[in-house]
Parts: sequence; C-alpha cells; structure tokens
Amino acid sequence: MRMKDVCGLLGLVAGEDERVFTRLAGYADAGPEAIVFAVDEASLAKALASVAGLILAPVGVGDASERVLAVKNPKHAFALCGRWLDGFVAAVIHPSAVIDESASVGRGTSVGACGVIEKGAVVGENCSIGSNVTIYSCTTIGDRVVVQAGAVLGGMGFGYVRGEDGSYVRFPQIGRLVIEDDVEIGANTTIDRGALGETRIGRGTKIDNQVHIGHNCTIGRDVVIAAQVGISGSCVVGDGVVMAGQVGLGDHVTIGPGVILGGASGVFPGKRLEGPGQMFMGVPAEPLKEYLKSLARVRRLKSRE
Amino acid sequence: MRMKDVCGLLGLVAGEDERVFTRLAGYADAGPEAIVFAVDEASLAKALASVAGLILAPVGVGDASERVLAVKNPKHAFALCGRWLDGFVAAVIHPSAVIDESASVGRGTSVGACGVIEKGAVVGENCSIGSNVTIYSCTTIGDRVVVQAGAVLGGMGFGYVRGEDGSYVRFPQIGRLVIEDDVEIGANTTIDRGALGETRIGRGTKIDNQVHIGHNCTIGRDVVIAAQVGISGSCVVGDGVVMAGQVGLGDHVTIGPGVILGGASGVFPGKRLEGPGQMFMGVPAEPLKEYLKSLARVRRLKSRE
Amino acid sequence: MRMKDVCGLLGLVAGEDERVFTRLAGYADAGPEAIVFAVDEASLAKALASVAGLILAPVGVGDASERVLAVKNPKHAFALCGRWLDGFVAAVIHPSAVIDESASVGRGTSVGACGVIEKGAVVGENCSIGSNVTIYSCTTIGDRVVVQAGAVLGGMGFGYVRGEDGSYVRFPQIGRLVIEDDVEIGANTTIDRGALGETRIGRGTKIDNQVHIGHNCTIGRDVVIAAQVGISGSCVVGDGVVMAGQVGLGDHVTIGPGVILGGASGVFPGKRLEGPGQMFMGVPAEPLKEYLKSLARVRRLKSRE
Repeated sequence: MRMKDVCGLLGLVAGEDERVFTRLAGYADAGPEAIVFAVDEASLAKALASVAGLILAPVGVGDASERVLAVKNPKHAFALCGRWLDGFVAAVIHPSAVIDESASVGRGTSVGACGVIEKGAVVGENCSIGSNVTIYSCTTIGDRVVVQAGAVLGGMGFGYVRGEDGSYVRFPQIGRLVIEDDVEIGANTTIDRGALGETRIGRGTKIDNQVHIGHNCTIGRDVVIAAQVGISGSCVVGDGVVMAGQVGLGDHVTIGPGVILGGASGVFPGKRLEGPGQMFMGVPAEPLKEYLKSLARVRRLKSRE
Repeated sequence: MRMKDVCGLLGLVAGEDERVFTRLAGYADAGPEAIVFAVDEASLAKALASVAGLILAPVGVGDASERVLAVKNPKHAFALCGRWLDGFVAAVIHPSAVIDESASVGRGTSVGACGVIEKGAVVGENCSIGSNVTIYSCTTIGDRVVVQAGAVLGGMGFGYVRGEDGSYVRFPQIGRLVIEDDVEIGANTTIDRGALGETRIGRGTKIDNQVHIGHNCTIGRDVVIAAQVGISGSCVVGDGVVMAGQVGLGDHVTIGPGVILGGASGVFPGKRLEGPGQMFMGVPAEPLKEYLKSLARVRRLKSRE
Repeated sequence: MRMKDVCGLLGLVAGEDERVFTRLAGYADAGPEAIVFAVDEASLAKALASVAGLILAPVGVGDASERVLAVKNPKHAFALCGRWLDGFVAAVIHPSAVIDESASVGRGTSVGACGVIEKGAVVGENCSIGSNVTIYSCTTIGDRVVVQAGAVLGGMGFGYVRGEDGSYVRFPQIGRLVIEDDVEIGANTTIDRGALGETRIGRGTKIDNQVHIGHNCTIGRDVVIAAQVGISGSCVVGDGVVMAGQVGLGDHVTIGPGVILGGASGVFPGKRLEGPGQMFMGVPAEPLKEYLKSLARVRRLKSRE
C-alpha cells in the first residue's frame, strides 16, 4: 500500500511520497512497514513511541511528523485501509468445499474447507464464505458478503400446525432467503428461509456470532445485531437499528428505523417500538429513562424498609 | 399429487376428478399446478384472485368453486399435503458425508454434505440429516427424524469435579442420547448425551435452531422448543410443553405436562412448574397473571412519584 | 486398569491385588469389569446391589467389602479414573479432516471428521478436536485441550466503524486467539480472535456449548462458563469465576476472581463485579441478597393491594 494509495483512499492529496506499507498493526507489534492509528494526544504519544511507519491521527492533534498523517476520523481511515488490503487476498475455493453443480458462485468469492453450497443457491462476487458453512437451496447472496465459519443460511423455519391428536406437522418451508450486498454474518449464526415468502437481510447489515433470525423476517439496511440475539419469525427491523447482545424479539415485532435495543432486552410478540436514536431496555423493553426509573423504584423500596 | 391423493390424505371422498398438482405455494407465486390455502373470507378472496389450481378453504366459507376444496382445518391440510409431497424427495447420502462403518443408517435416510455420523451411532429410516451435522457415538435416532445443518447430537455433557487444588476434572460422560421418532431438530442446536444414563427426546418433539439441551434431560412427547432455549442438565420436561425463545432452565428443573413458558423466562435450579395449559413468564417464572401484576405494580410506583 | 493403577492414581497404597477393570459405569449397566462410585450410605447400598467390580466410596461409610475402595472424594476419584482411561484412546486424525500444511498439530492429538485447521494455526499435544470444528489462522492452542464438534475458534470479532454515510466498515480483526493448556470447549461455541491484540482463555477453564466469547477478552484460569453465556468484547474474567447458563456481559466488563454469576444474569458495559465466592443475580446483576430482596419487595407490593 503506497502512500499514494492511502491518500487516495482517504480523499487526501498525496505529495511526492514513495513510502510503502504492507500491513496494519497495533503499537506493540508495529514495524516500519505497518500503519497504526491514534485517536487523541495520549494514544498518539504511544504510537510515536513505536516504530510504526505511518500513524493515522486526528487533524489538529500533535505536532507535524513525517510519520503522522492527519485525517478526519483515524479509526475509520484505519478500517478503510484494512478493507483496501483485504482486496488483495486471493480468492480460493477450498478443494474440500462442496458446491452443488447447479449452485452459482461469483467471481472473486472464496469458500472455506467443508463449506457447503446446496442445489440452486446463488452467491455473488467477492464474497468470503467460511469453513463448515452451510448454504441451503433457495438462498441468494449478494456481493461482498462475509459469512463466517459454521453459519447456516436458508434452513427451514420453525412453523408447525397441530392436529387434533396433539401431534405437530411442519408448515411448508418453501420460501427464500435473500442476503443483500455487503452484509457480514458471524460464526454459527442461523438465518431461516421464508415459509412461503422470503426472509431478507438488507444491504450493509452486520450480524455477530450465534444470532438467530427466523423465517419471513425483513431486516433493514445498515442494521447492527450483536451476538446471541434471537429474532422470531415475521419481524420487521428498520434501517440503522442497533441491537446489543442477547436481545430477543417475539414473532411479528416491528422495530422502527434507528431504534437502539440494550443488551438482553426483550420485545413481546406483535409489539412495535419506534423512535430513531431512542434506546430501549429491559423485558418488556421500555425507553431507557423509564427503565432506569423502574430500577431505581425497586431499589428505593428496599432502602425504605 | 392427484385430486384423489389430496382427498384421501384429508379423509374426504374424491369424485371423478383428474386434476394433478405438483407443488404448494403462496398466492404470489402460485400457478395452476399449485395448491394454496385460505383461512377466512379475506384470504379466500386473495386466493381466488391468484391463478392457484386448488384452494384449501374452511368449510362454510365462500361460495362453491371448482378450485376450492372445503376442509376442516385448511392450514393443517396444507401442511399434510406438504408432508405428502416431501415423501417423494429422493433419499441421498452425499458422497462427502462421513459415516463410520460401524454406524447404522436406515433405509430412505438422507445425509447432507460433510454430515458426520460417528462410530456405532444408529440412525433410523426416512430421516433427513443436514450438512455439517455431527452425530456422536452413543446416539440412537428413530425414524422420520429431521436434523438441520450444523446440529451436534450426543456430545459430552458439561460436568466437572473440582479437586483440592482448584482445578476441574471432567466427570465421565459415557451415557447415551436417544432421539425418538418424528423429532425435528433445528440448525446448530446441541443435545448432549447422558453422563452415565441417557438423555432422551420424546416422540414428535420439535426443536428450533440454537437450542441447547444438557446431559441426562428427559424431554417428553410433542414438546415445542423455540430458538435459543437453554435446558441445563437433568431436567424433566413433560409431554406437550411449549417453550418460547430464549427460555432458560436451571439444572434438575421439572416442567409438568402442557405447561407454556413465555419468551426469555427462566426457572431456577431444582424448581418445578405444573399446570397443563398454564402460561408462566419472567425470571424466576411465575404464572402469567402474577407476572403482569408485578409489571403493573412497578409501573404504577413510577407514576405516583 | 489394574487395582494398582487405581490406587496409584488416588495416592493410596495398593496391596497384592490382581483385579483389573476396563470401564466406568452407572449402577444399572455395571458389570464385574466396571468401576462405580457412591457418595453416601444410600448410594453405596445401591452400588452393592449391582454387580460392579469396584465401588469408590467415602472413607468411613459402609462396612468393609472387597468390592469397596474407601477414598476421600469418590466422585473426584471416579473422574480421575475416567481421565486415566481416556489416556488409552488412540489419537486419530480423520482422513476427511482438513489441516493446512502450514498448521501445526502436536503428538497424540485427534482431529474429527471434517475438522478444519487453517493456515498457520497451532494445536498442542494430546488434544481432542471434534468433527466439523473450525480453527482459524492466528489461533494457538495448548496441550490436552478438548474442543467439541462445531466450535469455531479464532473467527473475526464484531467491530465496525461507522462512516458519515451511515455505512459500517469492519475494524481490522488481525489479532490472535490463545487457548492455554487443559481448556475444554463445548459444541458450537465461538471464540473470536483479538482485533489488534489477543483473546486469551486461561489454563484449565471449562466452557460449555454455544458460549460466545468476543474479541480481546481475557478469561482467567479454572473458570467455569455454562451454556449460552455471551461475553462481549474486551472483558476481563478473573481466575475461578463461575458463570451459570445464559449470563451476558457487556463489553469492557471486569469480573473479579472467584465471583459466581447466577443463571441469565447480566452485567452492563464497563461495570466491575468483585468478591471471591460472592454470588450475583439479575439484570443488572446485584449481590444475591439484594436480588432476593428486590424480588420479595415486588411480590409484597402485589399482596398489599
């Protein structure tokens, strides 16, 4: 990564600068070939004490140094450099991967060892499909999608009809799963296909490990879903929603755009939460202010007795 | 699926009717070859507006039409048709599946890519074992069992004995796992074998994705366990119990037959809940009425101040 | 296992005793070749009623019998015998396992079917790596480590930087994962590598199924983590901590040595809990005594109205 590439990527004007960097690093293991970043005076001092070749630092912080490149948002700039470097990792389909001959895998896509892509599934370009991933038929995946090891995409949803004898018969699970571009999916996460219609994960959404998303959900764009969140069937989650770890949504829940759900909060079936930028907490989830009041009330009660 | 087959399956008398259907569908993608269902006047109107070949509709709803077949429970009938059609999917053991030569796999059973069936495990007839599933030794699986991708059956339970030096030694996990007929198990679910005795999942029980069932549990028949439920070791769950998502049971818990546990509710170790058809909620779980009272009390407190 | 071996293992003096045992068992399926254990008079009576060849029983309980060996802690002794017998299981690397040629796997280590060990990963001696496990590059595993089926070790952590356009760019996940000696990891558990630094699991720690441990966590020694616990990024968990099932820690939480967290309890981001042997419960977690008071207060309120 030449200095010119770094500057181009960050929208800066590059001077005559022939330096080349080959990797990102933390301060502890940085060498002259590495790029690091600093967010304030204190971290910049640490960065300068290392032998890192290039330090991305906030505009206006620290003195001029050949090693420091002033940028608006150093952490974001560092992440962009990472993405740029990732672009040079060669795409490999491991020989042990099992890709059905009727499945389609786009140019530049990697598939890890024992990754399985079943009949008729479609995977776009420049994706990274991890080892031991299973992609069922009826799944369509866009471009630049990352799926980490062990995830299961497009499995049958959990829907049954009870007969008069008390036994259950599976409701047909014959729909589709659509994963849009730039989605990232963590290890051992499971996303079910629609029963009759589709399950859809919107562009740019990021999903952590061990998340479960049920059949017929519609997840918006640029949604962030932390580990072990469980989303029951037929939920609608708006653009830009953030869910902390272990959140649970009952079925047919609607979460409006931009809502933030705190860790382990829960929403009862059929409910709707709205308010861009508003944070909800607890089971059942209530606005943060109300939640904190509830906590305080219970604790005050104790102190009175 | 001839009209005669549909009627036979549903216990109806078939007339002289030569129509043939090949698949189930939602209204949006139904063709003349497809069967759909309606549950009331409104959905029947939609179904009739589609070009679906056959509409399963409730007795007494809508006018007579050649395309409408009146049945007692259309959704159940639709599910039965789905099961009937599934019976024609050819059983395939994928060449990449790894089945130990001492394991036994019954007639008509499919095993997905990279599915692993270890030494001495027994799988019955007409089962569907997904890709990347692991079935440990000491596991016995009945007939018509469905195991979705990534599930792990018969692993070692979580039991340790602490020594005087503070370190833990695993308690022997040398028991068995028995999965009875007609059980269905979701993706990435884990069910441990017994430590000394057995873990058992009763006939007809349906288990969603990412459920954990610990060693030596006895789960009854026709139990429904939604996603991300965690059942600690040595629990007993009665027939017909329903557990919503993310429920947690401590070890040695007993849930009586027919009890319903609401989402994310929790039961402390050693406790017992009883009451067919009674719903429990919260942590620790209390009868729904009590739970709602508790919620209301805390909220009333806030409004008084 | 000769009587001499049993006694040697337990620090007892072996007399002239030529008996040999080949396995452990519960009472129900014990034969003369099996070792069982009893913890009190009642279980000793049951053990004596079986045909078990050797009964490990507490010193001072029951009468002398050739079949009874008096030991300080019979359950611990039984577990030690189990570990001793496990030592004779032959190490096998299944031919379907995928071990990158640049990865290193120590002497006596088994790898199950379709287990994947990626580029440059290091696995120590006498480990047991289950089927369908994925071990990413940048992972180093010590000796005598057990990893059950479907676990994913060393995946990318969940860290993103939001740009001005609202889209997320992954923060570089280029650190390491270190698993120390004698750690045991359950099925479908996921442990992420560090973003820049390392994630570390301390010696002797035992982790159940479906646990999630985020990037840059430091987990101490002899920690016990039950199923479905979720530990967010950058947490520090002290030696000897015990976490019951479904516990959740927000990011940057510190749990002091010896703390016990009850089932489904939660700790908010950035918080610290201290107190060896002290138990915490609830969301947010409070000392057990306080938690029980809170519960009682809410319930008393109801009864007053």
